[in-house]
Amino acid sequence: MNLPQRVLLGPGPSDVPPRVLLAMAQPTIGHLDPVFLRMMDEIRQHLQKVFRTQNEMTLAISGTGSAGMETVLVNLIEPGESVLICVNGVFGGRMSDIAQRCGGKVQIVEAPWGQIIEPEHIIDAIRKHRPKVVAMVHAETSTGVCQPVDQIGAAAHEQGALLVVDCVTSLGGMAVEIDRWDVDAAYSGTQKCLSCPPGLSPVTLSSRAAEKLHSRKTKVQSWYLDLTMVRQYWGHERFYHHTAPINMLYALHEALALVLEEGLDKRFARHHEMHKLLRDGLGELGIGYVSPEGRTLPMLNAVKVPDDVDEAMVRRRLLDEYGIEIGGGLGAFKGKAWRIGLMGHSSSRRNVTLLLSALREIIGR
Amino acid sequence: MNLPQRVLLGPGPSDVPPRVLLAMAQPTIGHLDPVFLRMMDEIRQHLQKVFRTQNEMTLAISGTGSAGMETVLVNLIEPGESVLICVNGVFGGRMSDIAQRCGGKVQIVEAPWGQIIEPEHIIDAIRKHRPKVVAMVHAETSTGVCQPVDQIGAAAHEQGALLVVDCVTSLGGMAVEIDRWDVDAAYSGTQKCLSCPPGLSPVTLSSRAAEKLHSRKTKVQSWYLDLTMVRQYWGHERFYHHTAPINMLYALHEALALVLEEGLDKRFARHHEMHKLLRDGLGELGIGYVSPEGRTLPMLNAVKVPDDVDEAMVRRRLLDEYGIEIGGGLGAFKGKAWRIGLMGHSSSRRNVTLLLSALREIIGR
Repeated sequence: MNLPQRVLLGPGPSDVPPRVLLAMAQPTIGHLDPVFLRMMDEIRQHLQKVFRTQNEMTLAISGTGSAGMETVLVNLIEPGESVLICVNGVFGGRMSDIAQRCGGKVQIVEAPWGQIIEPEHIIDAIRKHRPKVVAMVHAETSTGVCQPVDQIGAAAHEQGALLVVDCVTSLGGMAVEIDRWDVDAAYSGTQKCLSCPPGLSPVTLSSRAAEKLHSRKTKVQSWYLDLTMVRQYWGHERFYHHTAPINMLYALHEALALVLEEGLDKRFARHHEMHKLLRDGLGELGIGYVSPEGRTLPMLNAVKVPDDVDEAMVRRRLLDEYGIEIGGGLGAFKGKAWRIGLMGHSSSRRNVTLLLSALREIIGR
Repeated sequence: MNLPQRVLLGPGPSDVPPRVLLAMAQPTIGHLDPVFLRMMDEIRQHLQKVFRTQNEMTLAISGTGSAGMETVLVNLIEPGESVLICVNGVFGGRMSDIAQRCGGKVQIVEAPWGQIIEPEHIIDAIRKHRPKVVAMVHAETSTGVCQPVDQIGAAAHEQGALLVVDCVTSLGGMAVEIDRWDVDAAYSGTQKCLSCPPGLSPVTLSSRAAEKLHSRKTKVQSWYLDLTMVRQYWGHERFYHHTAPINMLYALHEALALVLEEGLDKRFARHHEMHKLLRDGLGELGIGYVSPEGRTLPMLNAVKVPDDVDEAMVRRRLLDEYGIEIGGGLGAFKGKAWRIGLMGHSSSRRNVTLLLSALREIIGR
């Protein structure tokens, strides 16, 4: 195995700090070893801080971010229930697909790719459809758009609905305020702004969501992702459910420690500053964003490929000649956009400068 | 993080060789990086050799062994279909639970814990119930019993059923002959006889199973485990589905290389020899097996706790004083059995000798 060393500036994974890689390489111990169980408790406490929540049901699902998405939806939706999904990109669409597979009656409130969904449209749709679950994506990785979340919780609760928020790309890179925003369930991935390898999905459920889980009339259709059992392994019962991905959890433990050592607010400011630096530099190259200023994410920069530029050639040359990975467009943006990630450990002045210089050399401006 | 170094002689995980830990700690690269895609191809080829199959649909699911179990069942069972499950321990029971969550009409053929299910009973049940899927556990980790598999495929196919086999604990430690046994779908875990950390589940599907998958009338109820999509990421299409657990796949790649370097037959012989050594030594301590000789697994030794011995105290002292982990009993064997794993890298003369000596010191014989 002869692996190249990349600079990961795509939509994830981001570069993993050496301390996290080394933690992951520590000898495996048992998943019921008292030392490992203590580590799980610490991971929960760290995750509560990063999610800014007091939720007791805060844990890491043994799968990647999409497994977190499926976990939340499959546990909170019962067949036949009405579900409202906000769709303005790939990941809202994925939520809708999963909700349908759960037997949910899905209503969609949507906006064009690159735009936010106006909060009043969502609130109107909640009042009209009176769903049991409202689901939205905070940071849409396919478009780089930041969706405002803070007003939706109150509107959902007024109608007896639970609010689910996808924080896969935002967690650890910008403010995610689970308790202050009154979010009932959220999930993330480890390979974005937490800068841990992919393989785990942090999940948190409010007591309101936990209540819904306990009052279900039907079994959760997934055994692997059934939180009524998974929580008993993470909780004080320590019931065996499945074997946790032990070394991945070493890595997450270390990655979260690094996030908290830096401090959340300082980390968010760094992401914001690097985003501005990149935006200014791209502007000088004549490269603009697919979404309006003020709506763009700091950690995922979806930008328009200039008309006279071969987008795939640029990505290939960045990878082959500079060892830099950036992402192409998905769905409606395929062939038309690049997605430049400045996530976690990857979000540095050195990387912004390197990428801008390499782009300038390749595009020839 | 201050982790102890254990000797892992429980029901999994097993000790991970340093080469595998180091492979896992290599810098993360993108999940669509050409170098990574080549590695995925090699993993598939390695897995085909270890499963002894030509099945094109051979890959690693992004979750632990139970996710592999759910993957196979959720993809091959459509709601309302008749399913026959062989149950003589925890993992057969788990299959039955999952099959019901898939909407399967489950029939059970069972045997007491510690016994095999007689193949003729299974064949009779197949002819009686004419199920669409027959599922069985090759190596029952809760009882240490080895279930004969080789006659069942023909009987299942005669009735138009698919044969599913759980090889979580057997793969890499004893003969698993997917093609010769005419098995349609099998899954395993990485943390048993492959001696890789937990977090992935090798899965293989025959062309007959792939046909069933493509002729489904309903969508697979799990999005995350939907093989119609997962296979397009592992196949030449390379469609993005979810972000693979990249560093875990580095580890699996290296673990499989180690298995193939040793050679399967040599590896199986080593497991068999260490099992005999342990059995003889335990016999001298007056400790017998929960299952009849000739039915015991080489890699998972489920033995009776002597009447005058406090089983939990012994396990605690092994861990605290010697750093050795063995497993307790599950279900019907809780408090009555120990489960001693000699899996993969853990299956060595040094470990057998150490464990027997430590047990002798603790029990005082």
